[in-house]
Amino acid sequence: MAKTNPGRFFEDYSIGQVLHHAVPRTVTNGERALYHALYPARHALYSSDEFARNCGLPQSPIDDLAAFHVVFGKTVPDVSQNAVANLGYAEGRWLKPVYPGDTLRAESEVIGLKQNSNGKTGVVWVRTRGLNQHNEVVIEYVRWVMVRKSDLDAPAPETVVPELKKALDVKDLIAPEGLDFTQYDFAQAGEAHRWGDYEIGETIDHVDGVTVEEAEHMLATRLWQNTAKVHFDLTFRPEGRLIYGGHVISMARTLSFNGLANAQMIVGLNGGAHANPCFAGDTIKAWSEVLDKAETAIPGVGAVRLRMVATKGGAPFELKNEDGRYLPNVLLDLDYWALMPI
Amino acid sequence: MAKTNPGRFFEDYSIGQVLHHAVPRTVTNGERALYHALYPARHALYSSDEFARNCGLPQSPIDDLAAFHVVFGKTVPDVSQNAVANLGYAEGRWLKPVYPGDTLRAESEVIGLKQNSNGKTGVVWVRTRGLNQHNEVVIEYVRWVMVRKSDLDAPAPETVVPELKKALDVKDLIAPEGLDFTQYDFAQAGEAHRWGDYEIGETIDHVDGVTVEEAEHMLATRLWQNTAKVHFDLTFRPEGRLIYGGHVISMARTLSFNGLANAQMIVGLNGGAHANPCFAGDTIKAWSEVLDKAETAIPGVGAVRLRMVATKGGAPFELKNEDGRYLPNVLLDLDYWALMPI
Amino acid sequence: MAKTNPGRFFEDYSIGQVLHHAVPRTVTNGERALYHALYPARHALYSSDEFARNCGLPQSPIDDLAAFHVVFGKTVPDVSQNAVANLGYAEGRWLKPVYPGDTLRAESEVIGLKQNSNGKTGVVWVRTRGLNQHNEVVIEYVRWVMVRKSDLDAPAPETVVPELKKALDVKDLIAPEGLDFTQYDFAQAGEAHRWGDYEIGETIDHVDGVTVEEAEHMLATRLWQNTAKVHFDLTFRPEGRLIYGGHVISMARTLSFNGLANAQMIVGLNGGAHANPCFAGDTIKAWSEVLDKAETAIPGVGAVRLRMVATKGGAPFELKNEDGRYLPNVLLDLDYWALMPI
Repeated sequence: MAKTNPGRFFEDYSIGQVLHHAVPRTVTNGERALYHALYPARHALYSSDEFARNCGLPQSPIDDLAAFHVVFGKTVPDVSQNAVANLGYAEGRWLKPVYPGDTLRAESEVIGLKQNSNGKTGVVWVRTRGLNQHNEVVIEYVRWVMVRKSDLDAPAPETVVPELKKALDVKDLIAPEGLDFTQYDFAQAGEAHRWGDYEIGETIDHVDGVTVEEAEHMLATRLWQNTAKVHFDLTFRPEGRLIYGGHVISMARTLSFNGLANAQMIVGLNGGAHANPCFAGDTIKAWSEVLDKAETAIPGVGAVRLRMVATKGGAPFELKNEDGRYLPNVLLDLDYWALMPI
Repeated sequence: MAKTNPGRFFEDYSIGQVLHHAVPRTVTNGERALYHALYPARHALYSSDEFARNCGLPQSPIDDLAAFHVVFGKTVPDVSQNAVANLGYAEGRWLKPVYPGDTLRAESEVIGLKQNSNGKTGVVWVRTRGLNQHNEVVIEYVRWVMVRKSDLDAPAPETVVPELKKALDVKDLIAPEGLDFTQYDFAQAGEAHRWGDYEIGETIDHVDGVTVEEAEHMLATRLWQNTAKVHFDLTFRPEGRLIYGGHVISMARTLSFNGLANAQMIVGLNGGAHANPCFAGDTIKAWSEVLDKAETAIPGVGAVRLRMVATKGGAPFELKNEDGRYLPNVLLDLDYWALMPI
Repeated sequence: MAKTNPGRFFEDYSIGQVLHHAVPRTVTNGERALYHALYPARHALYSSDEFARNCGLPQSPIDDLAAFHVVFGKTVPDVSQNAVANLGYAEGRWLKPVYPGDTLRAESEVIGLKQNSNGKTGVVWVRTRGLNQHNEVVIEYVRWVMVRKSDLDAPAPETVVPELKKALDVKDLIAPEGLDFTQYDFAQAGEAHRWGDYEIGETIDHVDGVTVEEAEHMLATRLWQNTAKVHFDLTFRPEGRLIYGGHVISMARTLSFNGLANAQMIVGLNGGAHANPCFAGDTIKAWSEVLDKAETAIPGVGAVRLRMVATKGGAPFELKNEDGRYLPNVLLDLDYWALMPI
């Protein structure tokens, strides 16, 4: 009996199936410090316990994207080990902050299946939930991937394409209990721009860039226990180790501090595309566009919907060509909701 | 008076001598997180406090090999600074788990000496013990190294070659107090294979690989306060920085998760050879062979004796040539006992 | 309205101005572990809680230089974002140890201004203070930098050049409350040389070297939330990413363990020059010279004033050429006070 895990193929999924992902993980101040070493993370709520307490939280949480990466990493052996492509995200929500000492696990429900016309691959939609040690859902999101078939003769499943929101409504967003930006310290946060200072349609060039190194993206990807071979093994992919898409997300988000220092908490992920692959030696930069704004019932808090684009060259604010395809220098096009002081 | 430490030479050792190694070290969740960033560590007992409690432990311990590296690192300035080669290990035992907050120190007793016939080098055997802040031995092992003489005229010591066990008996192994695998959660651990599913003689190709980088092995080796110049200084070794053998051990062990996810705890080190040097750019892979199995008196726990081989190329399960010498692609041949759920 | 921060130019500073630097930071055991991974840090007081308690402290503090880097990093966006050169340090003092869990913030007062004769740049002197969550000053130092003017027509300010001490007097130095070296364990510390064993004028070659890598210096520099583009972005500086001067300071200080293992605490920074730039691939080595010695009123503690020189080649103890200029292989010339057991 073979002891190693070959991963799931398209024919191994069925609608309603629940995958209980392995290897729960306790996250601590160690992961927190590593996040600050791997990315130029400066959002004050995640940097200072004192700042967090001043915003009504008991202490500084683990970065929202670090929590996302931990949950995402758990799903890789069950969802994307034999994936050809990571196609999209939708309906992502952060429901509870993750604090040092919390233990995360993850499970995914198969909510969509569609075999491709070539008969060799199919698309799988899963709704993934990350849970803490109290069985509270801390994060949830839908992801869909293209997966290879192993047995090409396996019958195609009935096509089920889930109906997904193009964007979350502000009413769908959940803020941490106790959050309150009425005493928000703009000087400590690093920028004076409040929610009211941003306009729909406004674009921001975040200016700074980081030339990425092999050691760094591997440290990050391993830290999230993401096991996809393409990120680590040059004998598996001699043309170059592919950088985990989440490394690009975190790099862009932390670079966006410069111009969005007060977009403190990520609370919703409306969608996202990894437009082109990223490799060591690329210099990641980022720009953002304000897509929407909404008031909230939380004291002192407004919501802003942002497009965050990561690039490896080219001018800011360029995204697609005339055919509507991403330009070759675009790495990432992410659509998310963040909370800001009003 | 010269203030720097030249290290000990062969003539500086004597039978019965006890070396109290310097620089005690408090290990924390920081070291724990770094272990997960440096290696693809996924064994659940070391990843989740909840999983560890479900196995009868108070919390998730520091990885067994991380504890080993900390103790080993302390011995380098006294034992292997002038070593020509690290020749072997024997009778290694993990006696107490190490938890975040524990402070480790180390001492070694010289138990064997044999000058080589060339008169320029000799072999030194030491039994090293790692102790925690309560003066409890947490780990012990025998290591022997070939060390240069500084004064070639120094008389050869009486030859003492210690009698060492080829392998520890299962009765010699110590499990942590309270360990209990009767409630073991195989789904959370990541594989369904239990102790009864492994057969003596069975071999497992762990499939995954990591192409190693200079920054990573130096981060790891420094983290263990291992000061050997060959790992860090290209002006000292212009042909390439040699990767610390323990980095290869930890890489292979964590890669072995895929097929041995339930070989949770390392409790015995029967022997080991660093067959060939490892350099940045090498891709480390691993395979294992089940050498022995034994029942234990611990609830739900069986012991499995494993050969773990790390390679930098070649096919799995190839080890030695016709002359009994290690093939050039073999990095490591390690023989250890692990505890598994029955 | 532009949302990104262009940094301050020479004409934006005025005497008496107080800059409240953004992004407070809680430092934990995670930062502590990373310091040990990034540098060959072995001073026992910062490695072991037990050793620290034996010296009268409640636990092992965060390394003095790590605290310095955190404070320094906060000042970069306000002080050196448009700096042409980091010209010097003076009157640096460590006033309180920083422990895991402490939250640091920083503020700087402009104490000197002098426009250069070219009319394009000027020198700015600031006195920076790092404060903890109790509003206690934990560190303070003067730094001066050459900063570009943005508006060349802006009038030159009145020249104010602060009077700075060439070196702190031993009476100016502050030791942590409770510090006591009367029970100091030299064996655990790693060397037998006590304060009385060092002579003024004595030089020490620290022998060991580290060949530095891009990933490492970027991890370190980000960990301190230092945002200077030159360290990260190869498109900004195609001729090579410049290594943060503080990375060289920490590397040299930790290499100086070999010969100065008992120079435990840094308490004063008299001055320092970053003589030449450092790049990935350089091998950093260090040598020291005893500049002065002084008794203290602290039980068992003496003070030693040291010159620490970091090099990237050349012979030890070579510093300047006949014209009094630093030799091209000299990276750093730092003058500091440390506390040793008498």
